[in-house]
Amino acid sequence: MANITKKVSWSSRADESGAAGEGTPLLNGSEQPRHSRQESQRGRPKEIPHNEKLLSLKYESLDYDNIENQLFLEEERKMSYMGFRCLEISRWVVCGLIGFLTGLIACFIDIVVEQLAGIKYQVVKENIEKFTEVGGLSISLLLWAVLNSAIVMLGAIIVAFFEPIAAGSGIPQIKCYLNGIKIPRVVRLKTLVVKVGGVICSVVGGLAVGKEGPMIHSGAVVAAGVSQGRSTSLKRDFKIFEYFRRDTEKRDFVSAGAAAGVSAAFGAPVGGVLFSLEEGASFWNQMLTWRIFFASMISTFTLNFFLSIYHNKPGELSNPGLINFGRFQGDSVAYNLYEIPLFIAMGAIGGLLGALFNVLNYWLTIFRIRYVHRPCLQVMEAMLVAAVTATVSFTMIYFSNDCQPLGPEHTEEYPLQLFCADGEYNSMATAFFNTPERSVRSLFHNQPGTYNPLTLGLFTLTYFFLACWTYGLAVSAGVFIPSLLIGAAWGRLCGILLATITPDGSIWADPGKYALIGAAAQLGGIVRMTLSLTVIMVEATGNVTYGLPIMLVLMTAKIVGDYFVEGLYDIHIKLQSVPFLHWEAPATSHWLTAREVMSSPVTCLNRIEKVGTIVDTLSNTSTNHNGFPVVVKVSGSDEPPKLCGLILRSQLIVLLKHKVFVELARSRLTQRKLQLKDFRDAYPRFPPIQSIHVSQDERECMMDLTEFMNATPYTVPQETSLPRVFKLFRALGLRHLVVVDDENRVRVCVSVYSCMSLMITFLSLNAMMMMMTAVVLTSHFWFVTLLQVVGLVTRKDLARYHLGKHGLEELQLAQT
Amino acid sequence: MANITKKVSWSSRADESGAAGEGTPLLNGSEQPRHSRQESQRGRPKEIPHNEKLLSLKYESLDYDNIENQLFLEEERKMSYMGFRCLEISRWVVCGLIGFLTGLIACFIDIVVEQLAGIKYQVVKENIEKFTEVGGLSISLLLWAVLNSAIVMLGAIIVAFFEPIAAGSGIPQIKCYLNGIKIPRVVRLKTLVVKVGGVICSVVGGLAVGKEGPMIHSGAVVAAGVSQGRSTSLKRDFKIFEYFRRDTEKRDFVSAGAAAGVSAAFGAPVGGVLFSLEEGASFWNQMLTWRIFFASMISTFTLNFFLSIYHNKPGELSNPGLINFGRFQGDSVAYNLYEIPLFIAMGAIGGLLGALFNVLNYWLTIFRIRYVHRPCLQVMEAMLVAAVTATVSFTMIYFSNDCQPLGPEHTEEYPLQLFCADGEYNSMATAFFNTPERSVRSLFHNQPGTYNPLTLGLFTLTYFFLACWTYGLAVSAGVFIPSLLIGAAWGRLCGILLATITPDGSIWADPGKYALIGAAAQLGGIVRMTLSLTVIMVEATGNVTYGLPIMLVLMTAKIVGDYFVEGLYDIHIKLQSVPFLHWEAPATSHWLTAREVMSSPVTCLNRIEKVGTIVDTLSNTSTNHNGFPVVVKVSGSDEPPKLCGLILRSQLIVLLKHKVFVELARSRLTQRKLQLKDFRDAYPRFPPIQSIHVSQDERECMMDLTEFMNATPYTVPQETSLPRVFKLFRALGLRHLVVVDDENRVRVCVSVYSCMSLMITFLSLNAMMMMMTAVVLTSHFWFVTLLQVVGLVTRKDLARYHLGKHGLEELQLAQT
Repeated sequence: MANITKKVSWSSRADESGAAGEGTPLLNGSEQPRHSRQESQRGRPKEIPHNEKLLSLKYESLDYDNIENQLFLEEERKMSYMGFRCLEISRWVVCGLIGFLTGLIACFIDIVVEQLAGIKYQVVKENIEKFTEVGGLSISLLLWAVLNSAIVMLGAIIVAFFEPIAAGSGIPQIKCYLNGIKIPRVVRLKTLVVKVGGVICSVVGGLAVGKEGPMIHSGAVVAAGVSQGRSTSLKRDFKIFEYFRRDTEKRDFVSAGAAAGVSAAFGAPVGGVLFSLEEGASFWNQMLTWRIFFASMISTFTLNFFLSIYHNKPGELSNPGLINFGRFQGDSVAYNLYEIPLFIAMGAIGGLLGALFNVLNYWLTIFRIRYVHRPCLQVMEAMLVAAVTATVSFTMIYFSNDCQPLGPEHTEEYPLQLFCADGEYNSMATAFFNTPERSVRSLFHNQPGTYNPLTLGLFTLTYFFLACWTYGLAVSAGVFIPSLLIGAAWGRLCGILLATITPDGSIWADPGKYALIGAAAQLGGIVRMTLSLTVIMVEATGNVTYGLPIMLVLMTAKIVGDYFVEGLYDIHIKLQSVPFLHWEAPATSHWLTAREVMSSPVTCLNRIEKVGTIVDTLSNTSTNHNGFPVVVKVSGSDEPPKLCGLILRSQLIVLLKHKVFVELARSRLTQRKLQLKDFRDAYPRFPPIQSIHVSQDERECMMDLTEFMNATPYTVPQETSLPRVFKLFRALGLRHLVVVDDENRVRVCVSVYSCMSLMITFLSLNAMMMMMTAVVLTSHFWFVTLLQVVGLVTRKDLARYHLGKHGLEELQLAQT
Repeated sequence: MANITKKVSWSSRADESGAAGEGTPLLNGSEQPRHSRQESQRGRPKEIPHNEKLLSLKYESLDYDNIENQLFLEEERKMSYMGFRCLEISRWVVCGLIGFLTGLIACFIDIVVEQLAGIKYQVVKENIEKFTEVGGLSISLLLWAVLNSAIVMLGAIIVAFFEPIAAGSGIPQIKCYLNGIKIPRVVRLKTLVVKVGGVICSVVGGLAVGKEGPMIHSGAVVAAGVSQGRSTSLKRDFKIFEYFRRDTEKRDFVSAGAAAGVSAAFGAPVGGVLFSLEEGASFWNQMLTWRIFFASMISTFTLNFFLSIYHNKPGELSNPGLINFGRFQGDSVAYNLYEIPLFIAMGAIGGLLGALFNVLNYWLTIFRIRYVHRPCLQVMEAMLVAAVTATVSFTMIYFSNDCQPLGPEHTEEYPLQLFCADGEYNSMATAFFNTPERSVRSLFHNQPGTYNPLTLGLFTLTYFFLACWTYGLAVSAGVFIPSLLIGAAWGRLCGILLATITPDGSIWADPGKYALIGAAAQLGGIVRMTLSLTVIMVEATGNVTYGLPIMLVLMTAKIVGDYFVEGLYDIHIKLQSVPFLHWEAPATSHWLTAREVMSSPVTCLNRIEKVGTIVDTLSNTSTNHNGFPVVVKVSGSDEPPKLCGLILRSQLIVLLKHKVFVELARSRLTQRKLQLKDFRDAYPRFPPIQSIHVSQDERECMMDLTEFMNATPYTVPQETSLPRVFKLFRALGLRHLVVVDDENRVRVCVSVYSCMSLMITFLSLNAMMMMMTAVVLTSHFWFVTLLQVVGLVTRKDLARYHLGKHGLEELQLAQT
């Protein structure tokens, strides 16, 4: 491609344009399906092997770089120092509100789940007790299974039929949002309502799920809503925080919301901040971090305050989080040097089990994508899982003969006696007949000897597969608590075994410690976070004594797990074919340059452009970049047009909607100018181009884009290496990066144009003129100037490359 | 300036250049002192009001953006995937080493200080006990003062005479380094040795200092040393880690080292990571963060391991950090809602006292800069402070009649009986006659009633001024522990007063809690960190119960303190006139564009350049950008040269040293090509240009810069707003940003050139030719092309603008 010199013909049309002195768009309408070409180049058959080998084209990007057009700059320049101070203060206010509301929602979920689960377990318990005496426990089983299925059905119906995006934990979606991908409907009010309702149903329905992941998503939705000062769904506009109605500001608040969610879920404000940063942010900004921290703090505070009132101990604020691991009594000799290798070994086990979990879930998800994609099927699957969970639990409890004496200060909420002697309870039931949060706490803190090894082993095994089956159902539910529970079970098992096999068993006195380590290992093995998870675990246990072992364990679990397969969230992101940008470009990608990765040719618009052209461009579905370089033609010269800005599809839509046409402006001078406010009002749900009616007369009008385009888009020369492009793109949160020609050898850049222009010209049967122009141009061959647009790099162009087994691989792009 | 159209004359010289087809440098040697012009524009008199209104030109920047020249790209492209994996593994190994060595150093400091301080206090104690009986305590005072002064003198001498950069805590210097400023000698081995020796002397010498700040600096030096695989000072090259010999990689390791230092000092691995990020990083990279975390972990681990051996409890690893705040017995009702306002009030007091501390220290520092800049004076001041500290302490102890009964498990290491009854000890002496770390612990944990309010009040007062006087002396010492001590004292005082004035005093039972809050407030008020400091405090106390109050207090202290004056470290950075880049551009700077802030004109080099020109350029002291845009002239055309790359002074120096001249290359083809290794070997101490001999013949040779220049430097158009430039600069860690012309109106960009060229041409008396060229050019007026270099933005151009009382202010640039 680079070495073919072709005759240039673009000025043939440019010269026809006349009055305005601006040529018609150069490359417009000639959008070549480049990616299909690449696919055919690679010689792949039509068959699509796996969903994760694709990159979906349906996801738009968010624009985390400010669009610095004239309107924006004017506004900023007009604003006084006090104005900026007020803005800063309102940012803090919004963060406070986000924290407060997130805390409230967490509180609501917690109380409702506790009440409903209490009723359910009470009913089932009474039933079991009744039938234990008279026989016929199968009726109890039926009751339990039906109750669970009914509740889960409710949760699954609202998710599957009303808001499928509310399924799962929501963490992958929030990760994508913070990464800069617009996942449709992910931060809407409806999603929040469904999410909250759904998570209550799934936890009460006895599924192997937690309510913590959904809290993070809820926090993000709250943030996106509050910061905009209006609700599009409810059609209410409070006319406040209008300044924050753009992607850049909204992203910052969503980070704060996610952090507030973590903070409420685990009572871990610092962990929340780190979660947001580890999973989302790329550019670390001190002030932003402090605001996120503030939101987290307020969130924990609110939750604690209301829960303390609910628990009739108003004002006691030291009880953190939705999940409370309880306090470990940290004596100063909590662990010893020789235990470190054991911890590391447990980390490795966690990594292995986590990888197994992920692989199983991966296959299951592929199966689901292929065969279980109809909502009613999804609901039925969820009900099936609920029934199976109840049945398995019941069977395990039924066949377990692990009876433990009921202590004076028994911590079990619903002790099941079943076939145990009086004054004893069934130990298996503390694990199964309970909300998962309570089970985790029992495993951490119950006295040594509370569980026998067989119980724990069986429990681990069954719960592992149940949790794996459950994640990915069409219910809103998190994976944190099930992972912790599995890990705590086998961790405690390890502790008990150690105490048994060593001669001096007393030094391994506390199996709860191993339960904690196991829980960390399992969770780390599944989700693969390290820094934030360490802090979350430390904050949730309320003790930094185990900080160092937890870190070691998480690190080991991550290294071991990464050897086999990615983290669970990343797997699900990949299966959605989302163009997710990782932290760095793939290691061996230095041989790629912007020229190779860019999309080219790209549709350019003239600074003063015909309305008809713009409408056609926007209506053309093959132009999927959503951003158009604006070029300007030097009047009177025969040089190619030069880049002078970048304009987004959404901006053009607003311009068309308000009919900001040059001719109209002349006729109605008194009318107000289009302001930034008009763009903000339309944000973020810009109407589709089809809904905008442009008459035939209007199509002949011209539009002046000067005021609205971003006049200083970031550009790179086409020789820039991929890692460099990637760094720029990632660090600045770009959406479009214009690739310009910086070479004085003209051959490269004109070859693309010339192909296009040649085609166009032949089609218009203007061959004669083309020949002439070509001759004229050839004489000017070495004078063609710089900063010509030669391509556009978007997120998809960068996300396409990844390191596979055979070195650098390129994902296919698809419309799915 | 922008509107003056001048005739252009640069091609007159370019045409003379002949063979290579490249013109001579355009603007070389014509570096106009732009900044002096600006100073005169502002009509300021010669008198320099304050040091912090200046921006020093003596500091170079570090290059945190990879120099992607052909050599680099070739190397990267050659490297296999396994190569990258090995690199990644060696990064982890280096981080492990950094952590290990930092932990060792911390351990060494801790043990030596403990031993020496033990001996000193024992000697003095025995002396005091002897003379308490016989009278003549003035001899004890003299002994104490002389001992202190002597030890401090030693510490001050090595700092003041051998390595002045080792003075103070080193945190401001590390902040600057991570910000991208090359502070000379800051990460050298000699600095480390002096720092370690100095901090031992100052702590043992009884100054109001801590050993924690210096640990951070030590960690950074270790990191910078280890990661380079050689010691320039010791002239040893281990031929390992050669890949890491550049600013980008080194910065990452220095972050890890600083984190390891914090981790060792406070037993706070997570706090260490956050410190590095909060104070240094701008681009958050997940893998990097994990490596930093790993280094921190290893550091705490090493310290704990060796200290556990030292304390004869090998293997007990739960004792964190150099400073051990002791464990708070966290019962579940540690604090209550109605205490929150009290905490906030204490935060406000901390902010006020912190601001007072900073203001006093600011005046003192200005005084020191003006009058105490000779090393011997500095040593004398340090000795004076040591003697005064001893005297004041002695006087306080002497006149105190606060006698407390000696408990059975008395925690005081050196209880002074003095005039107290038998079985009692002087309470004031626990605060003064002790290392500050121990005093803090006593204030946190001693039983209620151990101190009387008067003792605490007097102690706070005296220690406040002592600490303030001490910080900034020519000794290596930190401010963390003194701040904590002051805060703990008045915090405990608050606790006692609250218990006294309220009817039911029992609810304020634990003054230690208020001591902790006070300590946090005071430290926050002085250093103004929030997130990292919260985590550090939580990790150091080993209890997350007080996490929420500590956050609130730190946030309040920061807000209150920031209202009056900046943080202590920022003050010292400003007083050094360092071009420090903050997180964001000043709020009201949108009206500034790249055109206004850039340095212009800038010395450009041709791609194939005469050696003599390069030598002259480098020798010219007025060209202080250390980076030169490389331009290329289109042969045969009369257009101005176009940007094709950027080359650094250091690269040119290496090229000159190796005599990479085109003519020589032809004559000795067999000789090896210059490789990246040659640049790495010279890094980071590139020789000055004066040390490189270039003969008169060699001056006539040509140098081909193509391979060595960064072919894709980041560029911005001159209309880009300052915040946008700032963001790009900060997010990518740039050193030079080339401003290019993107306008088709040529007037702006040629005016600068034409001024220069006119001058040059007139000087060369080539007026005739110039006139002719000008005529030729005028006809081509509208054809002049783009991507011409019009200026260069460096760190100083951005750091110059800051928000003062009267809106945006511009700092003066000075050679100081």
